[in-house]
Parts: sequence; structure tokens; C-alpha cells
Amino acid sequence: MEEVIKKAADVTEKVCEWQPPEKLKALLDLELKDTGENHQKLLQFCRDVIKFSVKTNHPRFFNQLYAGIDYYSLAARFITEALNPSVYTYEVSPVFLLVEDAVLKKMIEFIGWEEGDGIFNPGGSVSNMYAMNLARYKYCPDIKEQGLSGMPRLVVLTSDECHYSVKKAASFLGIGTQNVYFIKSDERGKMIPEELEKQVLRARKEGSAPFFVSATAGTTVLGAFDPLDEIADICERYGLWLHVDASWGGSALLSRKHCRLLHGIHRANSVAWNPHKMLMAGIQCCALLVKDSSGLLKRCYSANASYLFQQDKFYDVSYDTGDKSIQCSRRADAFKFWMTWKALGTTGLEERVNRALALARYLVDEIKKREGFQLLLEPEYANICFWYIPPSLRNMEEGHEYWEKLHHVAPAIKERMMKKGSIMLGYQPHRGKVNFFRQVIISPKVIDVPQHLSLRVCVCVCLCV
Amino acid sequence: MEEVIKKAADVTEKVCEWQPPEKLKALLDLELKDTGENHQKLLQFCRDVIKFSVKTNHPRFFNQLYAGIDYYSLAARFITEALNPSVYTYEVSPVFLLVEDAVLKKMIEFIGWEEGDGIFNPGGSVSNMYAMNLARYKYCPDIKEQGLSGMPRLVVLTSDECHYSVKKAASFLGIGTQNVYFIKSDERGKMIPEELEKQVLRARKEGSAPFFVSATAGTTVLGAFDPLDEIADICERYGLWLHVDASWGGSALLSRKHCRLLHGIHRANSVAWNPHKMLMAGIQCCALLVKDSSGLLKRCYSANASYLFQQDKFYDVSYDTGDKSIQCSRRADAFKFWMTWKALGTTGLEERVNRALALARYLVDEIKKREGFQLLLEPEYANICFWYIPPSLRNMEEGHEYWEKLHHVAPAIKERMMKKGSIMLGYQPHRGKVNFFRQVIISPKVIDVPQHLSLRVCVCVCLCV
Repeated sequence: MEEVIKKAADVTEKVCEWQPPEKLKALLDLELKDTGENHQKLLQFCRDVIKFSVKTNHPRFFNQLYAGIDYYSLAARFITEALNPSVYTYEVSPVFLLVEDAVLKKMIEFIGWEEGDGIFNPGGSVSNMYAMNLARYKYCPDIKEQGLSGMPRLVVLTSDECHYSVKKAASFLGIGTQNVYFIKSDERGKMIPEELEKQVLRARKEGSAPFFVSATAGTTVLGAFDPLDEIADICERYGLWLHVDASWGGSALLSRKHCRLLHGIHRANSVAWNPHKMLMAGIQCCALLVKDSSGLLKRCYSANASYLFQQDKFYDVSYDTGDKSIQCSRRADAFKFWMTWKALGTTGLEERVNRALALARYLVDEIKKREGFQLLLEPEYANICFWYIPPSLRNMEEGHEYWEKLHHVAPAIKERMMKKGSIMLGYQPHRGKVNFFRQVIISPKVIDVPQHLSLRVCVCVCLCV
Repeated sequence: MEEVIKKAADVTEKVCEWQPPEKLKALLDLELKDTGENHQKLLQFCRDVIKFSVKTNHPRFFNQLYAGIDYYSLAARFITEALNPSVYTYEVSPVFLLVEDAVLKKMIEFIGWEEGDGIFNPGGSVSNMYAMNLARYKYCPDIKEQGLSGMPRLVVLTSDECHYSVKKAASFLGIGTQNVYFIKSDERGKMIPEELEKQVLRARKEGSAPFFVSATAGTTVLGAFDPLDEIADICERYGLWLHVDASWGGSALLSRKHCRLLHGIHRANSVAWNPHKMLMAGIQCCALLVKDSSGLLKRCYSANASYLFQQDKFYDVSYDTGDKSIQCSRRADAFKFWMTWKALGTTGLEERVNRALALARYLVDEIKKREGFQLLLEPEYANICFWYIPPSLRNMEEGHEYWEKLHHVAPAIKERMMKKGSIMLGYQPHRGKVNFFRQVIISPKVIDVPQHLSLRVCVCVCLCV
């Protein structure tokens, strides 16, 4: 624990101890045998696992949309791992069901709904699936029993900047990926409402049935927020279910300064929101929130298994929430977030969001000041997208050759950084733009003095080139 | 930790500290406020959460198909909670991806396949969904893009004793619950192969498309095993995908004595198997295993997100398994099972299975010997289903009134046991049979001397009446 918690967060240590797959396989003794190993050997396995694992708690881990560790959440997670609850019935998980209810209610309050419903589930992707299926059930309850065969073609609308899970959901739910209509977004990555309306009309003209719009609050790469209020107008006009995938951006709701990014979210029918990202609740902590409070979620998902949800129990069985879920066993993911919220209060969570956005702002300013760094676009949120331009390209004209060469820079830097264990930073090509870095600063371990931060980040990148 | 691990396992302590929902709400300070609480108060919250939570590690917790705690797994879970990995790419989760691969390979070996593929996912229910969608993709790859609208009606076949998740999957995947054909099972709860064939022919005659048979190895209530070999014959004959939901029964594969229960499983196309049940890997630890090794799983589930699964990485990207998943973030659930397997070896896991089945046998013998206990049926596996007949009913004729009265006995005993905190045991009505208890003995904390065990269990039930 010393190694995995304390040493992992030490900036003088490596963020990762890179080994290629085949070599790592040889280093670890992965084979499962007939007889067990002694405790000394098991302890060595643990040390090796820790040594060669990426330290997501390290101040230089910027690779994903999560980073850092919250010790209150971690304490809660140790408790739930040891209690090993499964959250389906009040009799087996009395505390965790009530905690989940309290957390959902509070999240619903921040969305701006007076009432609502919801369920914690294993991921933003799964939350989006839940929402799409729920909207389909609302649109045509018979589909639950009859299925889609013989039904009109259902159409899902989302922006071309949406998370890939919307496509996965359409495939999994039998709607089909070609029935996802991708709406053009503007240069900042925000869905263009006029384009949405055009596509709704197109779908109607084709005789198909548009029923579900998935807007994004905080896109994965650019961190863009779709204009929810204008999208809600269109959804109202055409009777469409509005889902907001706020897996990444939802946490801004807790900041009085930044909640305007999600202006209009109270008009949504459902929202996906992952406190495991910016709020550091630990993988996974994801809620699907639903505006309906008439029991739609349960009607849509229930199977009334009599061995689990007996109706002749001696307590109020409306507390048995398991039949709202696509899962049977379910983890007590709400508890870790509840513990953090209890410990920090809303103001503490708000500070966490404000700090991430202030650090993002600072990084942008530094990138603009420094030679060899080029910002892709002014960020709306915490995602800072930039190119590092190596000296050899700085005086070159921005033609085909320039972009072609620049495309190979980020992967090459990434490789060097990984092998050095100095920093982990994601890169990707996107919307015709060649490979660029995306940096998000969440971890409280990133030093609080901004000068040091930017110096560190930039110097680090430079040194690796 | 003292309370949650040591005290919770003490047989002289309560298995639960029952409070009705409204009263528990008042006892716990659930509200999330603007300002945080001090550490003393947080510690008190933790104590309350532990106090009022069910002790699934207590020797008298028999309420679900899991119980007890494995300390090796728990150590592994503490490590992963602290490292907070997300298992999608090799760069972020090098160790956990390799560990998952090693565990899947070993599980595949026990199924009897030469090769295969698979993925750990959040539950047996979700595994069954994965399998159904995979079978559909294999049956008609175009459905991924085109969806089900305009397709012939797809039909799923499973026994009337299957887990409720098969129905949930059919609903979620857009197939529709009425297109699940439930095959009659015999008096022991095993699917009748001749009935399966009849239903396949019926579906064909109707012009619909039967494509998927979900057999069950270890049903939830009775613990019955479908005759896999005969079912496989029919699946072969009609070109149907054979999935085996071995979420509960799969662990018997590790026992040379009991693996015959799953005879024929090597002929399945996919298998769901939850090591978090009998093998005590901790909620959740569930694998979907697939016989295909040509990449079907990835072709079916991939969305090729370029921000995550870049193709120009400096390592072999075939190790990035995230695109086989319906999730984006994914927990490192394989690791805790790997640790237990490493510690105990296959023989240790085998003993665990043998012990559970030996204790089940012993309980059956004791139930037969004792007045007032009546076995529902001879068990095949670890599920012992029985009625407790109170003295007032023992000399009554088994007519309508008798069954009506007996139906209320189990809920009444359950209530008393819960309120006393003496024992937790599930009950349910099933197949026209009035409420009966189902007991499964997994926990190693259940004392090893069988006399004591049965005495305890039976006396406990008796005392509560």
C-alpha cells in the first residue's frame, strides 16, 4: 500500500515502468498452476503487479479523462470490498440502497429537476444504452415484448463529436449503426441545432421514426458542450427524447462559475454523469438519471423475478431497486461518491471543478507564450488540445508535407515519454487534424503553483523530443 | 476493518442489524451538504454503514448464491482500488490486460476448448446479453449496421428455469420478450431436449428465425443442469448458437468429481461463468467465454474510436482489448480471481467446490432425519430447497388449506430471523410450489464439523418459528 498509494504519487518516481507485452509476460509469472504459491511469493507478485502498473495517481498521468485519487472515496471502496454487498434488495443492501437514493436525489437537484429517478451502473457507455432503451420503451412500450422486427426503422440523432458508445448502443440494442444520424458540429465541436432539425425532417420524410437525441455535455476529445437549450426546443417541437451524455461534463453542474456550460440540461429526459472522472470517485462511478418519476425506469427494465423480488416480504418492497437494472448483482458504486461528498461538501467538489478549469486556463496561456506549442482551439472546458512543433518544422510552410510530418510527432514523443516513464498524455488525430495531444489536469497532486505546473508539463514534453 | 472483516465473521455476532427503511434513514445522516464533515464524524458514518450493513461474510449468510470472503482476492481488490486502472488499452493497463488474458485462457482450458476468446464484464446478466448479441451478429452480421427493423423475427430458446436475465437481454437487444421461447423442463428443472426440438420446429414453421439457445448449468433456484450434450446435438442439427449460462454452475468444472454435471459444455459456442459466486472472487467477477478465436468478438463489438485505439502506437495494438467490450472504462475484475487461483492453485479451488457440495449433501441427510423439515427434491448441485413444517401443520392433510398455510411460513420465519439477526436465508415460491427456503453453503466460515453445521442451521430455523 505504501508503494501503490504513496510512492505512486511521488513526482520524482516514474508514472509507468514500460515493458512491451511479450517481455512483461516473461517478467510476470502469470501461469495458473495446480498447487498454490506461498505467501512470500504472493507478496512478490503483488509488488510486481504494482511496479509494472501505470500509476494513475501520479501527478504526470494525463492520459485519460480521470486521474488522481480521493482518499475518502478510497476508504469507502475498501469498506465495500470487505463487506462485499450486492445492491438489488433492501434486505441484502439496506444502507447502500438508501445511500444510492440520497446521491441520486442530490444529483437530480443539480440537474434542476424537481423529481426524478436513476440508477448507478457500470459506465457512461452503459448509461447511454440505458437511456436509449428507455426512450424506445417510452416511444413504443410494445417493443419490450414484441421486439423491433416489423417495426418502423428507429432513428437516433447525435452529433459527429459524440462518444463512440452511442454507436455501440445502437448496434447492441438492435437499432443498427446506420440508423444513427450524425449531426454536423461547428468548428468548436458543438452540435449545430439547425442541422439537427434538418436531419429530423429527413428521417421523417424517409418514413422512419426519429425518437432519441443524444446531446453531449463535454465531448471526449475537444470538451465541447452542445447547446442544450436550443436542442431541447427542437426535441419538444418534434416529440423526441432528449438524453444528455454528460459523462464528462456533468461535474461542471457543481460549479456556480461553470454550470452555465450545461444551460438547459433541466429540459433533458435523461442524463449520464460519471463522478469517477473529474470528481475522482474511482473507477467506476456512473449514474443514469431520469426525469420521469412515474416508474418508467422500472416498467421498462423489470422482469419480476420471483426468487429475488418477492412481493410478500415484511418490509416496503418499493425499496428493492434491483429490477430497474439490466444487471442482477450490482456494485455499491454510489457509496464512494457519497463519502467524498460528505467529506468535502458541495463546496469542496465545486473547488475541484474550478481548480481543473483554472489549471486548464493557465496551461492555455503558457502554451500560447511558448515557442513550439500550438493550441488547436480555445477550450470551453478542461480539454487542452495542442501540437508540439519540433524545431525542424517551425519554419516550414503549412502544406501537405508539414502536416504529414507533424502527424508523426505526437506518437514519437509519446513513445519516448512512456519509455522514460516521465509523463502520460493522450494523443489522437481528429476531424482531419493530424495527431495532437489532449491534456486534462484533474489530479490534486499536480502542484498548486501554476508556474511550476506549466513549466513541468512543457519542459517535460520538450525534453522528450 | 476490524469490524467489517473480523467481527463480521464471528458467529456469535449478528448477520444483520435489521432496521426498516424509514427508521434506518433517520438513524443515518444521509444528507449531502454544502460543507464537509470532520474526520471524527466521517469515521462515525463508516461505523454506522458497517453496523447496519448485512455481513455477507458471516457464517450464517445463506441468502444469495455467494457468501464468505477470500482474503487473497480481497488483497487484490485493495490493490486495484488504489491503482484505479481502467482496462481498455495496454498502455494504461499492461499488467491487468495480461492477467485477464491468462485467466481467460485457463477458464477456456477447463471448458475444454482448444482456443477461444472472452472478456470480463459486470455480471452474468450482462454476459448473457453479450452472448445473445454475438450470436445474432454471427447469424446475420448486417444487423450491426442495419438493425432489426425489416428483419425476420428472431427467436431465442431457453428453459423455463433459466435466469431472468435471458428475458431482460431479449428486451434490451430489441428482440422482444415474446420471442423468447421457454422450453419445458423436467421435474428436476432440466431442459427437455425433445421439447427444445419441437420449439425450434415451431419457430421455423412460423417463418421466424431461431438462432440462439441458452442452456443453463446450475439454475438459480433448483441448481439444475440442462443436458448439454443432447442440447448441443439439436443446436448442431439446426445450426443454432449454443450458449451456456454457467454463471452459477461453471465452477464445478474445476472439480474432477463434479465436472460431469457440465458434460458436453465443450460443444458450446459461448459460456457465462461467475467466479464471484462459489469461488468467492468478490462482487463482481464474471467472464463471457467464446469458442471462436477468429476475432468474432471484436468484429461484433468494435467501434474503432480513434482517440483510444490509435493504430499508430509503438506497441502491438492487438493487446488493446477495449474494443471487444460494450463498456469504455472497465474494471480489472480478473486480477482478484487470478490472485486467489495463484494462492490456492487449481486443487484449492477444487476443494472449495467439493466442500460446498459435500456440505449440501450433509444438509440434505440431516433434513431427511429431522422432524418438521421436508426436502423439495434431491439436489443435483449445492442448492438445497426445503420447507420447514411448523408443528401446527405436521398432522394436517396436504390439501389447499395446508399449502396456503405453509406458503406463509417461510416469510414469517424469514422476518423473525432477520429481526433477530440470527440467519439470512432466501425463500421463494416456484413452479406452483408454495414458499420454500433455498440454502447454499459456500462460506469457509461455516464450521467444518458437519454435525455442528446442520445442528446450527436447523436449530436456528426451529428456534425462530
